[in-house]
Amino acid sequence: MFFASDNWAGAHPAINERLLRESTRFAAAYGTSDLDRAVEARFNEIFEREVSVFFVATGTAANSLALASVARPGGVVFCHSEAHVIEDECGAPDFFSGMRMVPVEGPLGKMNMKNLEARMARYPEDAVHHGRAAAITMTQATEVGSVYTLDEIAAIAQTARAHGLPLHMDGARFANALVALDTTPAEMTWKRGVDILSFGGTKNGCWCAEAIVFFNPEMARELPFIRKRTAQLFSKSRFIAAQFEAYLKDGLWLELATHANAMADRLRDGISGSNSARLAWPTQSNEVFAIVPIDTMKKAHEKGAKFYDWLEPRDMSEPAGEGEMLIRLVTSFASTADDVDAFLAAIG
Amino acid sequence: MFFASDNWAGAHPAINERLLRESTRFAAAYGTSDLDRAVEARFNEIFEREVSVFFVATGTAANSLALASVARPGGVVFCHSEAHVIEDECGAPDFFSGMRMVPVEGPLGKMNMKNLEARMARYPEDAVHHGRAAAITMTQATEVGSVYTLDEIAAIAQTARAHGLPLHMDGARFANALVALDTTPAEMTWKRGVDILSFGGTKNGCWCAEAIVFFNPEMARELPFIRKRTAQLFSKSRFIAAQFEAYLKDGLWLELATHANAMADRLRDGISGSNSARLAWPTQSNEVFAIVPIDTMKKAHEKGAKFYDWLEPRDMSEPAGEGEMLIRLVTSFASTADDVDAFLAAIG
Amino acid sequence: MFFASDNWAGAHPAINERLLRESTRFAAAYGTSDLDRAVEARFNEIFEREVSVFFVATGTAANSLALASVARPGGVVFCHSEAHVIEDECGAPDFFSGMRMVPVEGPLGKMNMKNLEARMARYPEDAVHHGRAAAITMTQATEVGSVYTLDEIAAIAQTARAHGLPLHMDGARFANALVALDTTPAEMTWKRGVDILSFGGTKNGCWCAEAIVFFNPEMARELPFIRKRTAQLFSKSRFIAAQFEAYLKDGLWLELATHANAMADRLRDGISGSNSARLAWPTQSNEVFAIVPIDTMKKAHEKGAKFYDWLEPRDMSEPAGEGEMLIRLVTSFASTADDVDAFLAAIG
Amino acid sequence: MFFASDNWAGAHPAINERLLRESTRFAAAYGTSDLDRAVEARFNEIFEREVSVFFVATGTAANSLALASVARPGGVVFCHSEAHVIEDECGAPDFFSGMRMVPVEGPLGKMNMKNLEARMARYPEDAVHHGRAAAITMTQATEVGSVYTLDEIAAIAQTARAHGLPLHMDGARFANALVALDTTPAEMTWKRGVDILSFGGTKNGCWCAEAIVFFNPEMARELPFIRKRTAQLFSKSRFIAAQFEAYLKDGLWLELATHANAMADRLRDGISGSNSARLAWPTQSNEVFAIVPIDTMKKAHEKGAKFYDWLEPRDMSEPAGEGEMLIRLVTSFASTADDVDAFLAAIG
Repeated sequence: MFFASDNWAGAHPAINERLLRESTRFAAAYGTSDLDRAVEARFNEIFEREVSVFFVATGTAANSLALASVARPGGVVFCHSEAHVIEDECGAPDFFSGMRMVPVEGPLGKMNMKNLEARMARYPEDAVHHGRAAAITMTQATEVGSVYTLDEIAAIAQTARAHGLPLHMDGARFANALVALDTTPAEMTWKRGVDILSFGGTKNGCWCAEAIVFFNPEMARELPFIRKRTAQLFSKSRFIAAQFEAYLKDGLWLELATHANAMADRLRDGISGSNSARLAWPTQSNEVFAIVPIDTMKKAHEKGAKFYDWLEPRDMSEPAGEGEMLIRLVTSFASTADDVDAFLAAIG
Repeated sequence: MFFASDNWAGAHPAINERLLRESTRFAAAYGTSDLDRAVEARFNEIFEREVSVFFVATGTAANSLALASVARPGGVVFCHSEAHVIEDECGAPDFFSGMRMVPVEGPLGKMNMKNLEARMARYPEDAVHHGRAAAITMTQATEVGSVYTLDEIAAIAQTARAHGLPLHMDGARFANALVALDTTPAEMTWKRGVDILSFGGTKNGCWCAEAIVFFNPEMARELPFIRKRTAQLFSKSRFIAAQFEAYLKDGLWLELATHANAMADRLRDGISGSNSARLAWPTQSNEVFAIVPIDTMKKAHEKGAKFYDWLEPRDMSEPAGEGEMLIRLVTSFASTADDVDAFLAAIG
Repeated sequence: MFFASDNWAGAHPAINERLLRESTRFAAAYGTSDLDRAVEARFNEIFEREVSVFFVATGTAANSLALASVARPGGVVFCHSEAHVIEDECGAPDFFSGMRMVPVEGPLGKMNMKNLEARMARYPEDAVHHGRAAAITMTQATEVGSVYTLDEIAAIAQTARAHGLPLHMDGARFANALVALDTTPAEMTWKRGVDILSFGGTKNGCWCAEAIVFFNPEMARELPFIRKRTAQLFSKSRFIAAQFEAYLKDGLWLELATHANAMADRLRDGISGSNSARLAWPTQSNEVFAIVPIDTMKKAHEKGAKFYDWLEPRDMSEPAGEGEMLIRLVTSFASTADDVDAFLAAIG
Repeated sequence: MFFASDNWAGAHPAINERLLRESTRFAAAYGTSDLDRAVEARFNEIFEREVSVFFVATGTAANSLALASVARPGGVVFCHSEAHVIEDECGAPDFFSGMRMVPVEGPLGKMNMKNLEARMARYPEDAVHHGRAAAITMTQATEVGSVYTLDEIAAIAQTARAHGLPLHMDGARFANALVALDTTPAEMTWKRGVDILSFGGTKNGCWCAEAIVFFNPEMARELPFIRKRTAQLFSKSRFIAAQFEAYLKDGLWLELATHANAMADRLRDGISGSNSARLAWPTQSNEVFAIVPIDTMKKAHEKGAKFYDWLEPRDMSEPAGEGEMLIRLVTSFASTADDVDAFLAAIG
């Protein structure tokens, strides 16, 4: 009953098998091997266009370097007030980019367009005291399990374009959002105006595979130096490449995300039909937020269920009442229907 | 015939096997799992005392965060003029620590004590214009294949102590130096006055396993935040731990380094007895520097040998003559006697 | 009719006279002269205890270096959501300290204690992902002309102490707040728990005189290096000292602030009794915020009045209606009753 | 007998008079006043072309921001090994620009062209590990009193151009060099290929007046934000402008530098003819380096002479012998012939 986070899962056998194969040979270091090249080309196919790809160690690194690549002195970056970049990365995006994250509020973990515009209005191009707008970053799927629709992505991108700003997407759970929307990588990104993507593999079956994908190669110009200067250039980079090769082969990544989302569906259904718990808000990907009696929660913990309680967002319409609390449940490629059912049984 | 670098090698089967086993289970993320704890404890045994251990993605990260942990405003760090931190990390140590690397010259890749003292004299404690001494970092084995003796380490440490400075050791090739000196990890580090160690596993059989080891836990106090803020905290940190577990089990790491060094011995012997090439300077670990006729070098390349030419150090006693050049040859756990012999044959 | 800002004023004759006298002699550079020492001692008298004093070029520098002096990796600083450090310094505090400013809302430009506690609760000591609390900074007088009472200062300081955090006060308009409260420098700072003060002289009659005052000398330990490293150590530092000497002599600074505040009183009285304008909220120092018809505002501009329109705070109880706007009026040591009356006449 | 540094001098009466006049009026803040504009235009005349001018607080700030304006990730800056930017600014240029200073040796404080080319060869455009060349900075007059000839400036500029690098000149003693060469500001800068100049007024009669002058306005594009973010934008910026106005009026600045240089000539002549002291090396501007018996030096100190002893450069042809030491003597606009003669008498 492991629902604490999708990064508690291990690695998929296909990933392991590919790593094993890679381990027996010599190859050029620092991202210059044939395999690095081949996997970079594979990303072109996945995204139906030429892209620039850079492997890094963590999702925090992907986000931070993506923003560093479009840094401007005195720049500010607009993000949702609960976004990973502002709440969960200990200031790494600020440190790497030299910019500040400016919070934009909105329900369900999504930036509200009006709030976004209002915030941006405070940072015009010549605002030497305030600082100036430099980028927008959005998270897909969001931190709270929701997913921006394609139209919502396009709307944010349009605003970014109107202000001459690049749009970055934090895709730590990109695959989960993709299958939730039943669309293509191209449609969910550059065809809607996304310029840079943090493409996460770690949470969905790899053990360490994160990439920054640039749809606008001009923005990637300085990245090789930025990456090295931030200690993110692996000598045996091809082991990241190997993971991505297996991950992207024959649609494995979509299969794994589909499974994770299905397990979340099963959780949602169970909670909806439960007497003891209720869904906190609608989610679409592999995260489920529920309000449960504290007693129930304790019992579930005693039975071995792993999950975290969660800080309530400000704009929650039906907050937890007395004796209740908000919890987060995350499914992954490694979750099983049995585990889900055991959990549902545990919370009665 | 892969002698370009030890980071061109793959990964050892025992490392793979351990990763495979780890991949099938769930465990807590961000370095808090039982395995992370167990491997940290294993480092205590290896070093015969309690140490603080932090896993990071690259050797550059290990060095940079080690120095960041002892950073002082306006601080300078003394290192050999050819050290990795000043020559090969694109300024990452400067960026992460906010300090400057000050070069100290000395033959054979080792800081000369007189030069070190002379340099340090320029940065007394109250030198608000120059900046002030904040740390010394040494590389073991050095960038050019030599190894500091235990007495040499102690001498540098004594100077560091006399000035109240911490001493860091860049041990990207720690195991190779260790077996070259036939000593223990404790003797080569804290028993001689080393405070912080970059402990490398990647070049010696892991595919991505680097650790910062603090012998003085007080210096590690801020490291958890520094590591997260520099995007070096792996969510699936236990896969680094797993590599180290296998690496340190039953002396595997020493076995692999012994092998690599033996292959370098074989290379050295072959070159010493060769008519066409000569050793550029004496080396003791897994790196060999040779001066070869350019024609010979080209032929070796044509036959598939992989190696790099090298910039000559300033203080080289017998530099390459006309029609010659300096090359670097690095052996690893994966080098074979056949490969070495093939190379020796290739250079005639 | 110059009400745009108190930094549009020139310099007081007594300041000029003292600068003139200083200009004719030689003296030691970089803050080591007899005069630097004497003025530092003068600050001890002003604050009734030994303090550490550092002169810098701008108020932004004072705030940024004050926060840098208590920086912690991954640290966050709590400030009012409209504070100068977060809204008007282009990220200098973030850049110099390596920390992030976290906004705390509250009416009248003052941090609300409940909001402050709630914000702080998100950054406990071990919050490696969120970051951790490192400092609180408050502005006295605030950006919107209000003044924290001594009890309010003590309450914030108590919270800071309870969390082991230093408390910084941005005193760009320290003198104006001081005379508004009719208290002493000691009472308004360290006796209420303030640890570090940005002491501004520029807005109140100097032309360039800002100081960082440490009530806790331990916190100042690294400042000499931090200041030099941020290019804030004047070679002819004694010319800042000279300004402060004249400024603090015979209570000149209090006299000037008393005058500026009185001119603001006159403005407030005039606006309160006006048919065309109304006070936006109560203010106590040398800033007045008024809501005026747009037509009136235009006419005043045409007649030569200088002032800025202002972005409405979120929590404004009676916002500007249609055809109206919010303006800010700032008085200074150089404002005259005639100017105030002319302005009042201009807005009818 | 004040020869410790030209920044021990006060301020010239004409500067004071102009400041006095400026102090009595109101004007727009933050560099937007009519006077700021007028003085910026004055720089166009001085340099015989349109330039972009930015006032900052210190010479260290001017150098650091100049380099920050042409910063590239992973960039390195070439400077003389004894240059102020690498030896006397506590790492401010590194901190503000995010780049590293790479020392280039050469006699008489000037970069040797061969050494410069050799150093640059190590940092080609794609050197992701080493870092890449980003700028060259030279000092005119140098730290040791010598002056680059116009041809020498052109040669460095040509190398910079060949590598696509901007050339910065640290002109803390620009006026002293200018009159030593008897040339024009245009000839000594952009006509010889200089792109950015730190134009110092403080050492030559102002009390605080430093400017960054961009001959290539494109390079100045980000400077307004960089300056604000580094706390270098004065609110009462016009008081810097006022000093420069007086300084540049009717050739005052050249007159003052001519005087300072003449006083240095007098010192040189006296030392050359002395039995007890000798010139350490030839100098041309307002700095004189002499080798004197330690006893003589002590006596001079006792008689009230102020000067510093100096660390001997490595390449000094005739170093101080036993019982001797190297001292530095700096003259300024405020030095008098009587003072010089008294000093010469004091050293016998």
